[in-house]
Amino acid sequence: MKIARFRTGRRVAYGVVFDEEIAEIRGSIYTKFRITDTRYPLSEVKLLPPTEATELWGPGLNFLDHLEFAGSVFGQEAPPVPQHPQPWRKGRNAMTGVNDPIIIPKDTAGEVHYEGEAVAIIGKTCRRISPERAGQFILGYTCGNDVSERAWQRDDWTFWRAKGADTFAPVGPWIETEVNPTGLDLLVRINGAEAQRCNTRDMLFTFPEIVSYISQQVTLRPGDLVFSGATGVTCAIKPGDTVEVDIPGIGVLSNPVIAEFDASGPG
Amino acid sequence: MKIARFRTGRRVAYGVVFDEEIAEIRGSIYTKFRITDTRYPLSEVKLLPPTEATELWGPGLNFLDHLEFAGSVFGQEAPPVPQHPQPWRKGRNAMTGVNDPIIIPKDTAGEVHYEGEAVAIIGKTCRRISPERAGQFILGYTCGNDVSERAWQRDDWTFWRAKGADTFAPVGPWIETEVNPTGLDLLVRINGAEAQRCNTRDMLFTFPEIVSYISQQVTLRPGDLVFSGATGVTCAIKPGDTVEVDIPGIGVLSNPVIAEFDASGPG
Repeated sequence: MKIARFRTGRRVAYGVVFDEEIAEIRGSIYTKFRITDTRYPLSEVKLLPPTEATELWGPGLNFLDHLEFAGSVFGQEAPPVPQHPQPWRKGRNAMTGVNDPIIIPKDTAGEVHYEGEAVAIIGKTCRRISPERAGQFILGYTCGNDVSERAWQRDDWTFWRAKGADTFAPVGPWIETEVNPTGLDLLVRINGAEAQRCNTRDMLFTFPEIVSYISQQVTLRPGDLVFSGATGVTCAIKPGDTVEVDIPGIGVLSNPVIAEFDASGPG
Repeated sequence: MKIARFRTGRRVAYGVVFDEEIAEIRGSIYTKFRITDTRYPLSEVKLLPPTEATELWGPGLNFLDHLEFAGSVFGQEAPPVPQHPQPWRKGRNAMTGVNDPIIIPKDTAGEVHYEGEAVAIIGKTCRRISPERAGQFILGYTCGNDVSERAWQRDDWTFWRAKGADTFAPVGPWIETEVNPTGLDLLVRINGAEAQRCNTRDMLFTFPEIVSYISQQVTLRPGDLVFSGATGVTCAIKPGDTVEVDIPGIGVLSNPVIAEFDASGPG
């Protein structure tokens, strides 16, 4: 089932996507809901980020083939293979939805990179759960882009803006609840040309392992997002580009890239 | 004016504190409200964290006299004096209120330290504001404790649990809207004995400077919290202790310290 959050007119609602239609639901996507007869053509609603997250998590380096590149961002050798997840907080201000622009801040030096990732959505509050049980607390999966400014990543003490600037966390288009997260192909296309290809079977730590690990010290809540980590080598995106994160079995997250052109705020 | 968030019975409300009473308000603390005739003895309500934060920010090292100690946590020399704030995200799961327990996780090695701090509360949405204008976007100030597990701070790649574990962000007791944040004394007492004393005039970057800096890349929202940074040398707290952060002119944030005693979650 594909669960989407959407706006129609001034109203925000959740719905279930059937082909080219979305059927509004009554109830909570986290507990119990029913599908109503209120339906809209998918093309006539605005899809929003699929949850109102309280927290967005990255797992730290989670693909072997990203280690060498990650080291190079800091002008260093590849870091050691992590022995456990090394979580970090991405920042909910960064969230944006499918078809919304990724805004390149006016004071960056052109090193804003895509990172196509799969994203788990927490469905139930959890604390100190085992990896074996953690899957039960995941509602489903969506596509995400861990947009990253490499100069800030190198120079700052934390990722607060390198990975947490406004619009640096596109997620969507919806939550797929019936997908096996362990063998998903993931492709990134820039202006239609393939730029990244991987499979979630190569994650060093699986989604349940990451969720379990974070939950040892942090209460995870419905709607929280856990990213998979990035693979391989990434490259810069620039205004005018379109970035697509395509996970067959989930959907396609497409975002245009624009320049921030106004001193008072995002364009 | 002292604005508090509180629970009475099953209801959560905001109110204004007058001596030993709290008067419930109607409206929003961020836009417009009126004080009603509904009053409760302060001793009969449960004070909650004064906002429902979407984000908690630390400024990075923000007091000269904390540099040497901060270096020693990592077994290193004092880091260089920061040339600009080095923000980091503390995690809203960590928030807890006055008189609520700080829970020492069962899997720590006894290195959980207090850090008494002043905390600014954002009152209006802001992005790319100047330091000169930033003060207008701050609603008021409260007391905070940036509880920090030093072994995790040393060993992990990020502060996700060292400063972001559940209950590691006590804040309260209320928001004081009429205080000058540039010359506030701040004391920490452990079991009544003074453990830390400083003044906010020694902050390397003022609250408006920190807020302005973060707002260059991140939209700050009403209720977001910005900590001042810690001073000097801190030491460990242990179950049975009571920690007080006292800022004359604001109030006293008191929290008992307890051990986590149950594998299924916070005690």
